[in-house]
Amino acid sequence: MSGFVSFVGSGPGDPELLTVKAVNRIKAAEAILFDDLSAGAILELANPAAELVAVGKRAGRPSPKQDHVSRLLVDYAQGGARVVRLKSGDPGIFGRLEEEITALRAAGIGFEIIPGITSASAAAAAAGIPLTRRLEARRVQYVTGHDVTGGLPEGLNLAALADPQATTVVFMPKRTFARLAGMLLAAGLPGDTPALLAENVSHPDQRLTRSTVAGLAAVLEQADARAPGLILYGPLSE
Amino acid sequence: MSGFVSFVGSGPGDPELLTVKAVNRIKAAEAILFDDLSAGAILELANPAAELVAVGKRAGRPSPKQDHVSRLLVDYAQGGARVVRLKSGDPGIFGRLEEEITALRAAGIGFEIIPGITSASAAAAAAGIPLTRRLEARRVQYVTGHDVTGGLPEGLNLAALADPQATTVVFMPKRTFARLAGMLLAAGLPGDTPALLAENVSHPDQRLTRSTVAGLAAVLEQADARAPGLILYGPLSE
Repeated sequence: MSGFVSFVGSGPGDPELLTVKAVNRIKAAEAILFDDLSAGAILELANPAAELVAVGKRAGRPSPKQDHVSRLLVDYAQGGARVVRLKSGDPGIFGRLEEEITALRAAGIGFEIIPGITSASAAAAAAGIPLTRRLEARRVQYVTGHDVTGGLPEGLNLAALADPQATTVVFMPKRTFARLAGMLLAAGLPGDTPALLAENVSHPDQRLTRSTVAGLAAVLEQADARAPGLILYGPLSE
Repeated sequence: MSGFVSFVGSGPGDPELLTVKAVNRIKAAEAILFDDLSAGAILELANPAAELVAVGKRAGRPSPKQDHVSRLLVDYAQGGARVVRLKSGDPGIFGRLEEEITALRAAGIGFEIIPGITSASAAAAAAGIPLTRRLEARRVQYVTGHDVTGGLPEGLNLAALADPQATTVVFMPKRTFARLAGMLLAAGLPGDTPALLAENVSHPDQRLTRSTVAGLAAVLEQADARAPGLILYGPLSE
């Protein structure tokens, strides 16, 4: 009798931004595997008898080997447990689900994915900014500011990212945004394109800083890269 | 004593995919303005004394004048009510918030935005597909298949949309996808790019149809355009 794994989107961090389904899965779980970014107050919803297993990964520190996490998931499920794998935001967006899903499939373990609120949607909502606007922002796109090595990902589509008629959200942008901004400006994006730095989205210490693409690049060259953040740029009028 | 408006993301339709905060706002509301697409079982959470006001807009039918909706919002709030304006999915993504926000600001009425689960995240989760994949899908982008006139929006960025290394989600795609697909193939997107048609996402009659970009275009030329749907294409391996 094998267990079951629920990949649960924990949203940006505020427990009120969990879905009802996520709350139900967290309460019913016998084991919860979580990254530091998706923890905090949310874990207080867990059954006191549940095993809480930290497997993450804090911005700026090396993460444990991915195959170690996959092995833990398989082990808990094969022991018959109802397992919740918490992923910050939405598990399908920069949640690196692939390896863990592959491992579960190989072991014949059933799973489901519970979508979550992205920090992009939460940051835009907090700032009163729609991510799409009928005439000015007809496309919204999400990219990540770093790949597994911590650098800017290879092969960025600059024609897409320098489009002034799209709202772009850069996840985990802090260490690479200055370089990305240089590439965007070279590709034709105006330096005075509105930009928003959102830190600790939905937490009590949330901070929203309005600037421009060129302005944020200058600020971030000096900034503390530890607080989790994301950057939105494009036609960001309120 | 003026009221207050909460723009509440109702998610794709399953009440379990509401956030806890959305449930709280719906239960506390004295008036709820809703589109047909965001209604159904979710309205059963409302206080029996709340006024439920249909202002929508069903796919394929003309919508009521936007300024009529804005006026209703202002009227209910000026009457002192706690108003919920339900928006399907996430209010910030193709929710056309701008006009309603502008009207509230002009009238000096306070508001907040509660983010919601997009049908994109819910469809991908149901299909077991991550929207981003580390090496193959480093960018995810959302566009809408029709503007206010019902036709394909002007000024699409085809270099962005025909990128085989992005996952693209087309909202309300049914009536225009055949034409869009032709433009994508002309711009270099391979016709055998995996595509998924997701209909009635998260509802009991949800239907997921796996195909290719060229294949879906052919199917949709004949299909019933009424059931709400969206199309995902790109590197959609499970």
